[in-house]
Amino acid sequence: MSNKVSLAVIRRLPRYYRFLSDLLENGITRISSKELSAKMDITASQIRQDLNNFGCFGQQGYGYNVEILLREIKDILGLNNTYNLILVGAGNLGQALLNYAKFEKRGFNFTGIFDINPKIIGSKIRGIEVRDIDTLEQFASENKVDIAVLTIPANITQSIYRQVVSCGIKGVWNFSNTELKEEKGTMIENVHLTDSLMTLAYKLNSDFNNK
Amino acid sequence: MSNKVSLAVIRRLPRYYRFLSDLLENGITRISSKELSAKMDITASQIRQDLNNFGCFGQQGYGYNVEILLREIKDILGLNNTYNLILVGAGNLGQALLNYAKFEKRGFNFTGIFDINPKIIGSKIRGIEVRDIDTLEQFASENKVDIAVLTIPANITQSIYRQVVSCGIKGVWNFSNTELKEEKGTMIENVHLTDSLMTLAYKLNSDFNNK
Repeated sequence: MSNKVSLAVIRRLPRYYRFLSDLLENGITRISSKELSAKMDITASQIRQDLNNFGCFGQQGYGYNVEILLREIKDILGLNNTYNLILVGAGNLGQALLNYAKFEKRGFNFTGIFDINPKIIGSKIRGIEVRDIDTLEQFASENKVDIAVLTIPANITQSIYRQVVSCGIKGVWNFSNTELKEEKGTMIENVHLTDSLMTLAYKLNSDFNNK
Repeated sequence: MSNKVSLAVIRRLPRYYRFLSDLLENGITRISSKELSAKMDITASQIRQDLNNFGCFGQQGYGYNVEILLREIKDILGLNNTYNLILVGAGNLGQALLNYAKFEKRGFNFTGIFDINPKIIGSKIRGIEVRDIDTLEQFASENKVDIAVLTIPANITQSIYRQVVSCGIKGVWNFSNTELKEEKGTMIENVHLTDSLMTLAYKLNSDFNNK
């Protein structure tokens, strides 16, 4: 697999994965780039180009074998592995993520919850104990942790991020409305909800979709 | 304002807004594209190009006036307006969004909550009554609703979307892990959490960030 693939292409892969899963669930076992194009609203040539990046070539007159393509994309995305997640910040959003069954189905399992609020430290959410953030280092040394999910206020996110990184945790899924100064060797994925809502406001205020 | 601006540029605007707000809060009143570039990890020429799209030109030897630029971006994004939001689906994620104070600060106000679960219909969350989804049409005819926030299971999202659209609601913020067949005149913004998590998995599995 090439390392030169752009992030824009990567970001489309989960979408391919979603569409192809739906197809397979509906008993569709092969599809042409043209048919996929109509479903996904991406040009057929873009689809061929995207998938060629990963050595997935459709066959002339046959198209793609959905099952093989799906397996390939799953492999590229690393979804054959399982991931241990810890939640940092057990507020509403954090609890919503804990309860999101889809993640487990894809191999993402929450194994620890951390907070700074003494009122909830020691309680359990979905059978997982809420621990003091100060015990994170010990927990991470005793348990494999792949991803820290940060659902904490913006003003403490950078310092918690450093703490997470110093424990050897490589993946960070950041929900706070701030941007982290990325440290070498870590991978950050941001979900900026306010940015998304602002983009919607823009669309509503412009002629963007009035084609 | 031009309608030809690409969505890629639009999507960067909330990020500019965020960085510029931080600068102003820290008393920084002017900034060059070069300084902004270092902070935002975008090239200076990209910044100039982005902002030129909206008629924001920095001055040679002075840079950008942060306050004016911020006002301009706020105007472009439509953040001088306020928006009435309804929540459809009062589960964990929906409640997390209801409690997110940042939205109100930006002019996004929840004015209604709808669900299909008889156990919670009639109860109140943050002082707002949870209503039966079947009363949506009446509510929308009596109240201005700009945006419907959909935090509902994937399998009912398309039909609820049609219901929302038929009530004349133009903006849809979709959190379900499915893609809507967009109807003319509506604006959809998707937050696909599983896609984001899969992208992080990819990064962890590849050499993507190992520069």
